[in-house]
Formats: sequence, C-alpha cells, structure tokens
Amino acid sequence: MMARDPASDPPDYRKDETRLWLSVLDVYNFVYREVNRQLKEQTGISVSKFDVMAQLARYPEGLSMGDLSTRLKVSNGNVSGLVNRLRKEELVDKSMSADDRRSFVAVLTPAGRQRFEEAAALHADVLAKCFGHLDSDRLGETTAMLKSIIKSPSGKAPADND
Amino acid sequence: MMARDPASDPPDYRKDETRLWLSVLDVYNFVYREVNRQLKEQTGISVSKFDVMAQLARYPEGLSMGDLSTRLKVSNGNVSGLVNRLRKEELVDKSMSADDRRSFVAVLTPAGRQRFEEAAALHADVLAKCFGHLDSDRLGETTAMLKSIIKSPSGKAPADND
Repeated sequence: MMARDPASDPPDYRKDETRLWLSVLDVYNFVYREVNRQLKEQTGISVSKFDVMAQLARYPEGLSMGDLSTRLKVSNGNVSGLVNRLRKEELVDKSMSADDRRSFVAVLTPAGRQRFEEAAALHADVLAKCFGHLDSDRLGETTAMLKSIIKSPSGKAPADND
Repeated sequence: MMARDPASDPPDYRKDETRLWLSVLDVYNFVYREVNRQLKEQTGISVSKFDVMAQLARYPEGLSMGDLSTRLKVSNGNVSGLVNRLRKEELVDKSMSADDRRSFVAVLTPAGRQRFEEAAALHADVLAKCFGHLDSDRLGETTAMLKSIIKSPSGKAPADND
C-alpha cells in the first residue's frame, strides 16, 4: 500500500554519511523521548526545564537570562518563558546580580534544588537503562568517536557542556 | 564570574552514560543546525519541510496525514501545518487516495520534486562536509555502534527510516 520508490534513495557515494546521520537521529530521538517522558511522568519537569535547572544547579550564585541563553543555545525569549514558568512553581527565584547590582539573575530555590536532584537521579537512571548494555570500554569508544566528529577541521567544536 | 559548583556534577558511577549522551547531543545539535541553516539559506526549505518532502518523494502515490504523522513521529497538527505551508508554495498537492476514494493524500508536485532533489543533494553535501574527515570504515563502525544502542534488549528499536 505504501510502495517505496527506490529511485529516490540517496546516491550510493553519499549513503555512508546519510546512514550515520540517520543513526544519530535514531539514538537522539529514542533517548530524548524516553528521558522526557519519564521526567514529565515522575517529576513533572520537561527536558527543557530540566536543562535550565541543570545550568542553575552548576552556578549557585545565579545566571542572567543572557548567560542562560548562551549556555543553552536557545533564544532569550524561550529562556525567559521557561524561567517564568519555573518561578510560578517556586523552583526558581530572581536574585540581584553580584557583578552588577542593577541587574538580576535566576537562582534555584531550595525546593528547586531538591527537585532538580531528584530529576537528575532519574535522568541518570534513564540514560543507564538506555545505554546499560554497553560496557565501560564500549561507552568510552562510542563517546570518543562522536567527539571526533565535532572536533573535525571542517567543523568548529561546540561550547563545552560536560 | 560563573564559578561552577563541583558538588552538582553527576555521580561518578553514571558519568560514562552522561558523557555518551552529551556527545550524542553535541553531534545532533551541530549537524542539525548546519543542515537547517544551509537548507534554509540555499533552498528556502527548513528541515521540517524537507523531512515531509523526503517521505513524499519515497511514496509517489501519496501519503495520508496519518501515515505522514506516523512515519515522521510528529503530531497530526504539526504535519497538517507543514503540508498546508508546502501547498501554498505549490510544492505539494492533494490527491485522491488510491486505497480509499473518500480520502485524500499529499503528493509532491513536479516543482516540489525538483526542489526536493536540489535540497537532497545539498543535504548530502552538508553531511559529507560534517562527516568528511571520517573514512568509510570509521563511518561504518560509528553507525554500527549507534545502531547497537537502540537495538538493545532494554530499548525497542525505532521504526526503520533508512
């Protein structure tokens, strides 16, 4: 009923690169959905909120909207929306910047830090389940191969986030 | 100015899995942005539209909104929006379903197929540039490692899309 048109397959000489990209997409989609589903179901926090909280957990003195936006590589508008929703849930608060007393930074509240720690433990559990069949050597090899892709001369390395 | 709190790093016993996931995210973000940027700049087609067109290119007799939604793993609403925008650009048309004459399927117009083929060639060029420093063996090994992640007993394999 949905007959496939073989003529529209990518040309052979580029098939290896396409296969690699499709396998990256498959892993990304599989793990992202699993992490997002379990975080939402068990902690009520989406991956987007989790990512904001993870940055704030690393910088206890707070981050400005601009710093958050840069670090998460998402727009200022998106970051402000997420921070506002986290403030309504009393997981994030605004605090005066130590660097510039005219500006404000977002900080985790104690409740926010506790919720983040629960979510981070769950996040690690889900990743361990997704990758649990790979032994430590295999995990390291796969990570090294992926890192070599983005440290290539043709591409610039992304900002560190590990 | 943004001092990091080492106490909030993930516990050691889960670090390998987290590193692997961060490296998947880095590759995904790096390649996705590059593909999206170049597709938009050079063909005016976003990755989301490209993905719809790629499915329609494989099924010349057309796909229903439901089939497209299942194959792309996005909501019916999103698919309908994308198809409507493609129809306005006259790259996609509606056609009567061969299976069920009461329902309609989306098909690529000749202009849509031509634009898709240009975009597909560019897409392959961008992937070749991103992955060009890996030789054929390395491409195959990395793909196999990634495929082994989602064919694990703990996870179900995603729908085929290669």
